[in-house]
Amino acid sequence: MEQTLRVCVFGVTGYTGTELLRLLSLHPGVRISSLVSSSHAGKKLGDLLPSLPDSLRDKRLEDSPSEDFDLAFLCLPHEVSRDLVPKLLEMGKKVIDLSGAYRISSSEAYIQYYGWEHPYPHLLKEAVYGLPEIFRESIRNARLVANPGCYPTAALLAIYPLMKEGFFPEWVVVDAISGVSGAGRKTSQQFHFPEMTENAFPYSVLKHRHTPEMEDVIFRLTGKRVSLRFTPRVVPMSRGMMVTVYMGGADASWIEVFRDTYSSEPFVKVVDEPPMTKHVMGTNMCLAYPVYDARTGILQVITVIDNLGKGASSQAVQNMNCMMGWNEKLGLDLLPLFP
Amino acid sequence: MEQTLRVCVFGVTGYTGTELLRLLSLHPGVRISSLVSSSHAGKKLGDLLPSLPDSLRDKRLEDSPSEDFDLAFLCLPHEVSRDLVPKLLEMGKKVIDLSGAYRISSSEAYIQYYGWEHPYPHLLKEAVYGLPEIFRESIRNARLVANPGCYPTAALLAIYPLMKEGFFPEWVVVDAISGVSGAGRKTSQQFHFPEMTENAFPYSVLKHRHTPEMEDVIFRLTGKRVSLRFTPRVVPMSRGMMVTVYMGGADASWIEVFRDTYSSEPFVKVVDEPPMTKHVMGTNMCLAYPVYDARTGILQVITVIDNLGKGASSQAVQNMNCMMGWNEKLGLDLLPLFP
Amino acid sequence: MEQTLRVCVFGVTGYTGTELLRLLSLHPGVRISSLVSSSHAGKKLGDLLPSLPDSLRDKRLEDSPSEDFDLAFLCLPHEVSRDLVPKLLEMGKKVIDLSGAYRISSSEAYIQYYGWEHPYPHLLKEAVYGLPEIFRESIRNARLVANPGCYPTAALLAIYPLMKEGFFPEWVVVDAISGVSGAGRKTSQQFHFPEMTENAFPYSVLKHRHTPEMEDVIFRLTGKRVSLRFTPRVVPMSRGMMVTVYMGGADASWIEVFRDTYSSEPFVKVVDEPPMTKHVMGTNMCLAYPVYDARTGILQVITVIDNLGKGASSQAVQNMNCMMGWNEKLGLDLLPLFP
Amino acid sequence: MEQTLRVCVFGVTGYTGTELLRLLSLHPGVRISSLVSSSHAGKKLGDLLPSLPDSLRDKRLEDSPSEDFDLAFLCLPHEVSRDLVPKLLEMGKKVIDLSGAYRISSSEAYIQYYGWEHPYPHLLKEAVYGLPEIFRESIRNARLVANPGCYPTAALLAIYPLMKEGFFPEWVVVDAISGVSGAGRKTSQQFHFPEMTENAFPYSVLKHRHTPEMEDVIFRLTGKRVSLRFTPRVVPMSRGMMVTVYMGGADASWIEVFRDTYSSEPFVKVVDEPPMTKHVMGTNMCLAYPVYDARTGILQVITVIDNLGKGASSQAVQNMNCMMGWNEKLGLDLLPLFP
Repeated sequence: MEQTLRVCVFGVTGYTGTELLRLLSLHPGVRISSLVSSSHAGKKLGDLLPSLPDSLRDKRLEDSPSEDFDLAFLCLPHEVSRDLVPKLLEMGKKVIDLSGAYRISSSEAYIQYYGWEHPYPHLLKEAVYGLPEIFRESIRNARLVANPGCYPTAALLAIYPLMKEGFFPEWVVVDAISGVSGAGRKTSQQFHFPEMTENAFPYSVLKHRHTPEMEDVIFRLTGKRVSLRFTPRVVPMSRGMMVTVYMGGADASWIEVFRDTYSSEPFVKVVDEPPMTKHVMGTNMCLAYPVYDARTGILQVITVIDNLGKGASSQAVQNMNCMMGWNEKLGLDLLPLFP
Repeated sequence: MEQTLRVCVFGVTGYTGTELLRLLSLHPGVRISSLVSSSHAGKKLGDLLPSLPDSLRDKRLEDSPSEDFDLAFLCLPHEVSRDLVPKLLEMGKKVIDLSGAYRISSSEAYIQYYGWEHPYPHLLKEAVYGLPEIFRESIRNARLVANPGCYPTAALLAIYPLMKEGFFPEWVVVDAISGVSGAGRKTSQQFHFPEMTENAFPYSVLKHRHTPEMEDVIFRLTGKRVSLRFTPRVVPMSRGMMVTVYMGGADASWIEVFRDTYSSEPFVKVVDEPPMTKHVMGTNMCLAYPVYDARTGILQVITVIDNLGKGASSQAVQNMNCMMGWNEKLGLDLLPLFP
Repeated sequence: MEQTLRVCVFGVTGYTGTELLRLLSLHPGVRISSLVSSSHAGKKLGDLLPSLPDSLRDKRLEDSPSEDFDLAFLCLPHEVSRDLVPKLLEMGKKVIDLSGAYRISSSEAYIQYYGWEHPYPHLLKEAVYGLPEIFRESIRNARLVANPGCYPTAALLAIYPLMKEGFFPEWVVVDAISGVSGAGRKTSQQFHFPEMTENAFPYSVLKHRHTPEMEDVIFRLTGKRVSLRFTPRVVPMSRGMMVTVYMGGADASWIEVFRDTYSSEPFVKVVDEPPMTKHVMGTNMCLAYPVYDARTGILQVITVIDNLGKGASSQAVQNMNCMMGWNEKLGLDLLPLFP
Repeated sequence: MEQTLRVCVFGVTGYTGTELLRLLSLHPGVRISSLVSSSHAGKKLGDLLPSLPDSLRDKRLEDSPSEDFDLAFLCLPHEVSRDLVPKLLEMGKKVIDLSGAYRISSSEAYIQYYGWEHPYPHLLKEAVYGLPEIFRESIRNARLVANPGCYPTAALLAIYPLMKEGFFPEWVVVDAISGVSGAGRKTSQQFHFPEMTENAFPYSVLKHRHTPEMEDVIFRLTGKRVSLRFTPRVVPMSRGMMVTVYMGGADASWIEVFRDTYSSEPFVKVVDEPPMTKHVMGTNMCLAYPVYDARTGILQVITVIDNLGKGASSQAVQNMNCMMGWNEKLGLDLLPLFP
């Protein structure tokens, strides 16, 4: 690798930002130019994470980037990302946006699920959905990659093998559990440790923003408008996500299609035993377990990812590798932290 | 309450046995006559749980009951319960069996799911399934009550309102998460703390024994043989269970039926907000949250219970109350341990 | 028990308030007259805890007590308790204050550790420190009982056997770990679930408010001013506290004194094996494990309690029993929630 | 780095072995030649950890090394390591032993604490204690490095600054909490998830094997035989260790000595705020927080490490770097997994 990519991380003190920093520090092709944080500008990184290596300890957080850079990772609230993206593109930067601001191609969905009209509908059209296993070719040439939501990543990898063959099930139920870090760093009563430990509950049962995101990707792929029943639940762990997709009207033959689809993918492994979230902790891996139940005629796929890994930050690194024409595994050949 | 019921607990050192002991100690109508434990016979209860009140500390565990009793709770392995039940009935005792040995009316299911032919098919016919919200009348006159499995309890309470009206959905998916105590006290690699903390995984995806149990109860109620898709998963908490039942072909009107069905039930509360497992910890309560999604036409019911409470030991106490003609709430008007 | 005590709980929505409610609901001698909550006044109790029994579900939280009562439990911030106590005493009520506002006899300690001058020094003198194993006789005649802090409860029970014999060690180190519920219900970054799970850290290393509280009780008992080295740490569990007291200059004979001191106490059990916090969860029990290390000449006592039980709410109930001349075990003969 | 070191890991399926594998896979200077596991010989690594990168997935576990190697890491039971070490040394290999078999220079301690007479006392003399911050020079020339225990690592780093100045305190109390992974992968009732979650307890209060290990290192350094009071406790987390050392007779000036001692150490950071175990998860870092309490005259040092990191596997990598004359930070400049 001759050149070194200069990257700037916006919003480095949230969970996806910190995880991104960990991964970028292991990556041989990048140099971190600036770290931007509106809430902690002026502080040193070592004030926030006292165990950092010396190379990062004294790095100062900034209000805006003081050094030039080639690519920006945005670990920002949706609304902040939404308005920053056009400016960065205009400056000629490549952008990987980890927020939801550019994930859905339809601007109506933003009104309904995000509560605002999207001011840059042309960029919604231009943005490439950053799931390399599906959109690899487009990502290679993208200026703007919308890094997928954690639930959609796990669910779409479960559904994609059928979709790409043009088959769509009679009905689809997406049932998910997630670690609490997926809800971000902002404190709340329900995530206060004494109340969240030994607890589990569903949330946003009818109106989660990842519903239109999944449906939109399916539409882009198949041209079909479908409705998913999606239910997220939170369980007492920090990281880890398990999605179970139930599909009606499929048959046993899809298991084989499933295996074929991912046979060459470095980050999706089809497994024969029920997968564990702990096995992917800290990695970019997705383990997928497809099962056909002949008694009910239901095809079921269980996928596990690290919601901050393949569900966010390591997927962003994979997208960067893809945009740069690098080997997608660069900096991501990681073993899980076990146990 | 004039008389005092003499109860004997078989298998008191497992999790359901210990929880039963806790609940019986709060019950005004019973006296614990004997505590039987094959593995710890001869030891004092205080050797196992050093914080016991003086009244229980010196109680000795026995190989077989040394005192007479009226009712037996069996917290035993399936096979041990299976063979003990006919002997106890012959001795004129009432029996509440917390194992799976008498839950299913069909002896074929035992061959297929338990791996043995049931030697007492006539008792399978006689045994009453101990879910008081459904089988209250039969429980009142029963000699032998088969205390339901934890998953079937949570799932059947979610399905029952439709079934009792004679409606059965086009398809039913039962998706569940459980605390680890549901798997019992026996150690295993996957439940070793360092591997289970911050971990979640499915198990018995195609062949869990609670599948035929649920289907059998539905058959008893509706006369219809149906097939459910049931997937249990374990998450890093000791107690607590959440079941989500997805049903195709229902409509919004069932929400109202749902409310009506349970309006007078002391231990099933229909709620308007997503329920938390922690809210029922240590109680006999089931919180049920029915939701209809007009976009997909799917009716969804989320129920939470304590797998050792309404899913096992406190339900056994409710069954005892019912068999004795007592108020079902006796000894069970408990607040959760929070937080 | 002929009469029924009418009790009012102030601050019922915090952790000690909710636990007190659970315990009072099991107590045969009390009737809950009013529940006061400034933050949730007007709401029904069932809105906060949806799994409550019907008898409590519709109870309304009030700004101030609407019914008359005999005894008040104050589960309030220190400053609010401080100012409410004199008013309640004037109204002729008995008061058990779970805050720190009346625990220390010296008003200087309040300036140094709480940051304000105590406006009612005469009440500091009158208040009885509510550790029944030490101050039982005074509690029986008290109008105002200052319910001890959780750390002081566990530490003083470890030190008391030596103190009451007039012996004081050369040096005392009090090393403690606590579940997070001890820090209350207020959210904060460090107690946000993803950051607190799989984490442990010390806090208030040099200036915790329980330091002068312990030293003051020792002074009341022995007339000696001593200085303790006290370090609290938080570990990832909701409930449970373990205190290790190290004492220099003692000898092996104190083990026997230790056993004798507590031989008739219902809520302190001296054990021969290292105790577990889980064994006391939800109970009023303290397990104490004294060990003498001949190699170093250090006497060490390890105690475990439930920080919301013997460390707060169940101790408050024990104090009430004591004030009323009832058997101290009334309503407190509880088994732990296990597992 | 021109040459590549060929390393062989013995006992790769335990927790220290797996963590070592993770770290070696990130290290630019090594090639993993053979992986030895008596319990899983013949299996592929991917059968144990399905999320491994392709480069490791198909690596087969062996009964004995099939390829030549330069250095062996022993992640084995004490007794197995004890007997393997002389054979490896005879074959001309360098050895880093993560067991306790060669940590103590006195063969009597093995009889008393390990229960057997050490058959190779000359190797006890030769073995270098692998705490680079103290024994760096000897490690550089060692054939056999005894990788320290987790508790001794955290405790000795807290005591060393005083010892190296020739000062030894009047008394020393070492109070520790550890995550459960420190007890290894073998299952047991007390570490069964439902019993260990929300639980904390001490163990081996008077006779832990790390006591003579710490005392022996102090003897090697100061020539003084001292007795420590050491109490380990386990808390409900997988990884993480916090040690608090209390020392009598020191004074405030040691804080400065403390800072100076570690000012150039890459893996020991002296901090001004109470440290968190989560901040070092997955790293080789030790955070140390020294505090002097003028009220009691007690000097207290709190250290945190990852028990599988600086407490075991990453320290082994640091020792390898040291033995090879490499920069000690090579492959260890890691950010913690947060949150």
